[in-house]
Amino acid sequence: MKATVLHAPGDVRLEEVPDPQLATAQDAIVRVTKACVCGSDLWYYRGDSPIKKPMPFGHEFIGVVEEVGDEVRTVRPGDFVIAPFTFSDNTCPACRSGFQSVCDHGGVWGRKDADGRAVDGGQGEYVRVPLADGTLVVAGEHDAALEPSLLTLSDVMGTGWHAATSAKVSEGDTVAVVGDGAVGLCGVISAAAKGAGRIIVMSRNAERTKLAKEFGATDIVAARGEEGESAVRELTDGVGVDAVLECVGTGQSMNTAFAIARPGATVGYVGVPHGVELPIGQMFSTNVGIAGGVAPVRRYLPDLIALVTSGQINPGKVFDLTLPLTQVAEAYAAMDERRAIKSLLEVG
Amino acid sequence: MKATVLHAPGDVRLEEVPDPQLATAQDAIVRVTKACVCGSDLWYYRGDSPIKKPMPFGHEFIGVVEEVGDEVRTVRPGDFVIAPFTFSDNTCPACRSGFQSVCDHGGVWGRKDADGRAVDGGQGEYVRVPLADGTLVVAGEHDAALEPSLLTLSDVMGTGWHAATSAKVSEGDTVAVVGDGAVGLCGVISAAAKGAGRIIVMSRNAERTKLAKEFGATDIVAARGEEGESAVRELTDGVGVDAVLECVGTGQSMNTAFAIARPGATVGYVGVPHGVELPIGQMFSTNVGIAGGVAPVRRYLPDLIALVTSGQINPGKVFDLTLPLTQVAEAYAAMDERRAIKSLLEVG
Repeated sequence: MKATVLHAPGDVRLEEVPDPQLATAQDAIVRVTKACVCGSDLWYYRGDSPIKKPMPFGHEFIGVVEEVGDEVRTVRPGDFVIAPFTFSDNTCPACRSGFQSVCDHGGVWGRKDADGRAVDGGQGEYVRVPLADGTLVVAGEHDAALEPSLLTLSDVMGTGWHAATSAKVSEGDTVAVVGDGAVGLCGVISAAAKGAGRIIVMSRNAERTKLAKEFGATDIVAARGEEGESAVRELTDGVGVDAVLECVGTGQSMNTAFAIARPGATVGYVGVPHGVELPIGQMFSTNVGIAGGVAPVRRYLPDLIALVTSGQINPGKVFDLTLPLTQVAEAYAAMDERRAIKSLLEVG
Repeated sequence: MKATVLHAPGDVRLEEVPDPQLATAQDAIVRVTKACVCGSDLWYYRGDSPIKKPMPFGHEFIGVVEEVGDEVRTVRPGDFVIAPFTFSDNTCPACRSGFQSVCDHGGVWGRKDADGRAVDGGQGEYVRVPLADGTLVVAGEHDAALEPSLLTLSDVMGTGWHAATSAKVSEGDTVAVVGDGAVGLCGVISAAAKGAGRIIVMSRNAERTKLAKEFGATDIVAARGEEGESAVRELTDGVGVDAVLECVGTGQSMNTAFAIARPGATVGYVGVPHGVELPIGQMFSTNVGIAGGVAPVRRYLPDLIALVTSGQINPGKVFDLTLPLTQVAEAYAAMDERRAIKSLLEVG
C-alpha cells in the first residue's frame, strides 16, 4: 500500500510499504477514505521535534473496516468508522474515568502498540488498528458530504471540545479562545454548542477571523501580549472571562490565558506545552485553575458524531485545502507556509 | 484595648492599642470572643516572610457585634458572628462568582482596607470590620460548646473545604490528603462530608494520625517523597486517587500530589505555594488539573455553619491548646515548636 513517511524535516514522502495484517484477535484493518494533516505534525516537519529514523506519519483518519480479529465485537467489515488520534482499550481505569488518551495499553498512530509491534500512520491507504473495540467508533451510514466534519472528530474537533469541557464552559458564559488554528476554531464551535453567551477570539488572520465568526465568535481581538490582554479585559468591564480555551501551547499564549481569566475561572488547555511555566503565585491569588491535556477524543465521539450528523455543527469547514494522498508533500507545505488552515487528504 | 503585634521574628507581643472606631457607614465593630493562630502566621513568626514594621496580627476570630455603621443591614449589635480571614464586599464580580477572597475591595486583617485605612488584626479584643454586610455571617445563637468549631470556619475548615471543593471530591471517591496540619485535617473532614469512599492521609505524626482517623481517614501513609507516592499507588492498585487535597504548599508536596493523582484527576490546592514549579508536561500527558488558591471562606460559611450546628462535623478538635489572650506568645511558640497542632486564644 501507499503510506506517508517522514524522513527528515521538510522531507515527507508517499511510499510503498507492506499491507498491514491482523496481528492480534483484537485488531481491525481499516481502509482509509480520508485523512488530514495536524498542526502537531508540523513540529516534526519543521524540525522542532526529533526524527530519529523515518516515521510512518499522520494520526487523523476515517474509513471503512475491511477485516476484524476473532475477538472484535463492536465493529464489523463494511462499517464506516472514526479513529481517535490515540488508540485505547476503553476498559482500563484511565479509560473508565473517561481519559482514553492516557490508556494503560494505548498509543498513537505511527509508533508502537503495547506489545511493541509497529503501528501504521494514519496518512496511508490502510491502517492496522490495535484494540479495535476500544478505539473505533461507527459513524453511522456513510455520507460523503459529512466526511470532512466527521474527519475532524478524530482530533481537532475533539480537542477543541476537550478545551471547552476542561474550561467548564456553560450556558451564558463569556469565553475567550486563545489561538485561531483548527483547534482554536473548533474551540469556538464547542463554546457555542455549550451555550456560551459571548465568545472572544484572539486572531489577526482575516480568513480565520471570518471562519471564527461563522462558528459563533462575537468579538475578535487582534492584538497580542499585554495589549491583547488589556483589550479582553476592556471587553469584559475589567473582570476577565468565565472560561479560557488555550489552544496554542506557548509561554506567551498561556500567560495571556491566565491574564484574561476572571477570579475562579478555569483555563482549559490543549495546545502541547512548549516553554510554558505556569504562574503559580498568580493562580493562587486569583483562584484560576487549569485543566486539560491530551484530549480523550474517544469519550467525546458519540456525542460529537450526533452533533455532526444532525447538522448542529459543521467543523469540516476548517479544511481549506483538499488534495489527493499523492500530494501529501504539498498538503504539509501549504500548512507550514500558512497557505492553509488545515489540509484534507483524499485517500480512497 | 489589648491586641497582638508582631515586632520581629519570634517577637510577638500583646499591647495596648487604641480602641477601634467606626470609620465608614459600612463598618461594624466586633468584640472578639475567640481567636486563634494560623500556620500561615508562622511564616512571619519564623522570619520566612518579611516584617517591615510592627504588624497588628491574626486573621481568625469570632465574636459579638458591638456597633454598626448606618448602612449595615445584615448584622446588628448583639449578633454572634464569624469573620472570614478576608473581608469582602460580596457584590463585586469576583464575589458574585463565589470568590470573595479575590474581592475588588477586600483585604486581610491587620493590613489596610480599600481606602487605605488601617485594619485591626484578629488576635485582639476588638476589630473594626470594613464592609460588614459583605464580610460577617451570623452564626446563630451563641453556644459556648460550638465556639471552637465555629472559629475554625473563619479559615482552616473553610480552607480544607475549598481544597475538597476545588478537587471536585464526590460520592465514593478515593481521596488523598497531602498534609496533616489543621488545614489537612479539615480537608479530611471535608472529604468525608462530601461522601469520599476512601481517604488516604499522608502523615507521620501520631497525634495527627489519630485525629485524621477520627475525622474519617481510612488509610495512613507515613512515608514521604517517592516512597510515599509508591505507597499511595500501591493502595490504589497502581491507578492513583480520584482527587488530591494539597494542603502544604511546598515543591515536594506538590510533586507528590501530581504523582498520586489518577489520569483526569484534579489537585485541589490551598497551601500557599513556596518554591512550587508545576510539572506542566506531566500534567498535559496525564490530564491532571489543578484548582484552588486563597479560600473564599465567605461563600462556604452558611453551609459549614449548618454542618457544625447540626453536629455533622466537629472541626474544633484541631485545637489542642487553649490559652488566654495574655499568653499569645506561648500560643505561637507551641505551634512553632510543633507542640500544638493549633492554638486557640480565649479573648473575651
